[in-house]
Amino acid sequence: MSSCCVFPGSFDPVTIGHMDLIRRAAGIYECVNVVVMVNISKKGMIPYQERVRILQKACAGISNVSVELWEGLLADYIREHPGTVVIRCVRNADEAELEIRTAAINRRLYPGTETLLMPAAAELADISSSAVREIAAFGGDIKGLVPKNVYREIIKHLTTEHADKK
Amino acid sequence: MSSCCVFPGSFDPVTIGHMDLIRRAAGIYECVNVVVMVNISKKGMIPYQERVRILQKACAGISNVSVELWEGLLADYIREHPGTVVIRCVRNADEAELEIRTAAINRRLYPGTETLLMPAAAELADISSSAVREIAAFGGDIKGLVPKNVYREIIKHLTTEHADKK
Amino acid sequence: MSSCCVFPGSFDPVTIGHMDLIRRAAGIYECVNVVVMVNISKKGMIPYQERVRILQKACAGISNVSVELWEGLLADYIREHPGTVVIRCVRNADEAELEIRTAAINRRLYPGTETLLMPAAAELADISSSAVREIAAFGGDIKGLVPKNVYREIIKHLTTEHADKK
Amino acid sequence: MSSCCVFPGSFDPVTIGHMDLIRRAAGIYECVNVVVMVNISKKGMIPYQERVRILQKACAGISNVSVELWEGLLADYIREHPGTVVIRCVRNADEAELEIRTAAINRRLYPGTETLLMPAAAELADISSSAVREIAAFGGDIKGLVPKNVYREIIKHLTTEHADKK
Amino acid sequence: MSSCCVFPGSFDPVTIGHMDLIRRAAGIYECVNVVVMVNISKKGMIPYQERVRILQKACAGISNVSVELWEGLLADYIREHPGTVVIRCVRNADEAELEIRTAAINRRLYPGTETLLMPAAAELADISSSAVREIAAFGGDIKGLVPKNVYREIIKHLTTEHADKK
Amino acid sequence: MSSCCVFPGSFDPVTIGHMDLIRRAAGIYECVNVVVMVNISKKGMIPYQERVRILQKACAGISNVSVELWEGLLADYIREHPGTVVIRCVRNADEAELEIRTAAINRRLYPGTETLLMPAAAELADISSSAVREIAAFGGDIKGLVPKNVYREIIKHLTTEHADKK
Repeated sequence: MSSCCVFPGSFDPVTIGHMDLIRRAAGIYECVNVVVMVNISKKGMIPYQERVRILQKACAGISNVSVELWEGLLADYIREHPGTVVIRCVRNADEAELEIRTAAINRRLYPGTETLLMPAAAELADISSSAVREIAAFGGDIKGLVPKNVYREIIKHLTTEHADKK
Repeated sequence: MSSCCVFPGSFDPVTIGHMDLIRRAAGIYECVNVVVMVNISKKGMIPYQERVRILQKACAGISNVSVELWEGLLADYIREHPGTVVIRCVRNADEAELEIRTAAINRRLYPGTETLLMPAAAELADISSSAVREIAAFGGDIKGLVPKNVYREIIKHLTTEHADKK
Repeated sequence: MSSCCVFPGSFDPVTIGHMDLIRRAAGIYECVNVVVMVNISKKGMIPYQERVRILQKACAGISNVSVELWEGLLADYIREHPGTVVIRCVRNADEAELEIRTAAINRRLYPGTETLLMPAAAELADISSSAVREIAAFGGDIKGLVPKNVYREIIKHLTTEHADKK
Repeated sequence: MSSCCVFPGSFDPVTIGHMDLIRRAAGIYECVNVVVMVNISKKGMIPYQERVRILQKACAGISNVSVELWEGLLADYIREHPGTVVIRCVRNADEAELEIRTAAINRRLYPGTETLLMPAAAELADISSSAVREIAAFGGDIKGLVPKNVYREIIKHLTTEHADKK
Repeated sequence: MSSCCVFPGSFDPVTIGHMDLIRRAAGIYECVNVVVMVNISKKGMIPYQERVRILQKACAGISNVSVELWEGLLADYIREHPGTVVIRCVRNADEAELEIRTAAINRRLYPGTETLLMPAAAELADISSSAVREIAAFGGDIKGLVPKNVYREIIKHLTTEHADKK
Repeated sequence: MSSCCVFPGSFDPVTIGHMDLIRRAAGIYECVNVVVMVNISKKGMIPYQERVRILQKACAGISNVSVELWEGLLADYIREHPGTVVIRCVRNADEAELEIRTAAINRRLYPGTETLLMPAAAELADISSSAVREIAAFGGDIKGLVPKNVYREIIKHLTTEHADKK
């Protein structure tokens, strides 16, 4: 019987929306594995190991949450962690459509994969990593959008990276 | 820590799509409560007590599944069964949008309510209770769409009701 | 090799949107069967035989179009007319989602059923039978929304029916 | 130059979601006409004149808002109130699709009709009149969902109506 | 009381769809500020200052329309232009979903931000800047898709840029 | 009277989902032209001529299917092949919305263009070229996702390309 879930994502950077989901998942599962997934076609802003470190600090206060990096398919993660359920956040119809399709292909790759979609809290559904990156790029204030105790680490990466691009 | 889920619905009638969801939920939760919800604005075809009996027979082989009738709000059910997670099936974007909204209002009515959306198996996503009712109404063959061991009970109700209407 | 298509619908009443689809289908298929489908759960405004008569008059100028009534499942129609392709109009994402699901259940009921979705002309995508009925009910002008040569027949039914309801 | 808008709806009953929209509209338009539209195909729970009275009481504190009943097409309302812009609430993709279509048919009926869609506040997007009716029907607490100063009037109608149905 | 609106976008290039929206907005607002937004993550085809010049020429005949460049967040624009309403075009459900989310984050960044969504005219809803760029890239005729008086400026940029890429 | 259809796409790489559509199209049209479209803004993984060769091998057993490369607009293809109908696959609401818009712009570019949308088989709707590329990039098994007789050619390109990127 499963009592662990995995919460996979890019977390580039982690937002208060992610944290709300992680806390809610931690309330209904014995253990929550937050997994930073490597995206082969998109480099992103924050180095992967750094995303893990930031998430670990952000989740430090929640006892049943662990964080790791996964450089492979989600279906392979489930194969190696049998009984783990995949939790994905859905904020609207568009995301749900994509997640339904992804859940199907993951079951095809590894039939034991069960994906459950957790609706984002309505009042946080406008927050996304890409919105945070864009706001930071224009010098906007992202203090209220990311976990307070990792704000400094995040802002450093977002503004440095942007500087590099210029 | 929650290990029970509730799977609410109309089940007018239960389909093989529902059964797939119930079996999958039973594989990842210690107990699954299938709950026939009373719909105040729509009478339906099969009497509520009969829907419960049919579901009980259909689920007889799955040891950790129970069936009951609930004549109230889902939020009140969760209030009386603390720690239970709501599992809802989503077959497409449209249903997901509705479920995201319903999950939000249920959290408003009872903050402890956590809803998780389980994507239907793609090859069963075209099956719905309303499709079954419509096919039966035209004398179509619903044998492959409902659980085999309750086919007779279901077809009796669907064709009788239709006869009444004429 | 198929060269006939069926264009099923309620046609309560036929609109200029329907006529555009029928003409376009008649341009790419050797024969088009426009089929008035009986809807068991909704009575509608115009009697079925009258809908057929109105459609026949509206389509009189298109030589390869025929009209008939079908009191059964669409899958059964295809079974009796092998090789016929189903053409359904889609005006937006919502309708497409429903049609994709319906196409799947029709293939389940009769595997030979092929459904093709024809996008409505953008400038006609706001017109629907239900919009026509609602406008007529409030005494609005539906002259531009239905085929000219059957306007009188249609308006008679829509306003009479409404009078009955009061 | 337009400085008035009309906010049409069923308001069966008015919710705190409606009130938020009305207040926001009142902040950007010189005058806001809240119009209770008669729905010919659905009777509803609260008598139309009563809906107007309840809305008038709910909007009493907002100086540039007026309330009236309209027994006709929205396009005819705009014809009689030239320069007025239609404001419609959208809570999600599904509602937006419907409103885009409705805006198009209203422009067809009366070319001067301009419709603007105002996104609901995210934290209120789960609230709808139909949700309020359903919650009230099961004896749930709707106090937080409708304007405080008209709660008594609303609850009386919703529960009376339900009692009649039994 | 607000009587100005801002119409932000990329305008890479401006299309007849944009022009229709601008004209309609100019009909219901005292002043319309068309704002070319800098997109930090996508360079685009036409230089920003050139987009402004092209838009100014295209809008020359509409007296209450001005054009400018904005290198920052939309929320900051509203902060500096208090009382201005944001007008965004929506062509379908998908765009509406995105705009609803964007409106929410803009209100979060600057609470005074009110966004209204204006449905595109149905007969122009297929036209987008990206479609124009793609058609031009293949040597297709974009004459009917962009404002006539700036056609030469636009085609020069689209074909030059493409030549550079080869 | 049309009896040929064109099935345009990127086919980077061809999947078993594409093959199912091609076979179904070949069952209802006298001839099916599978056309590899050049995408000017995205290079892709497999060279265009190679995509054509792979498709030709994959379709070798279906007598009425031909394959070719098209370096232009789809509307121009239809102009040069009058009477040919465009067949596009739709797997969900989101894709349908995009296809409806694309069909409209193609009719604008060449009025004779008729596009019909063919719903993907539900049990294949999770398979896409991009999913195949991503799975291959992580060393996942794509054997069941692409036609068996071209598996070797495809896997060679997907893994080589990925190696190049590192």
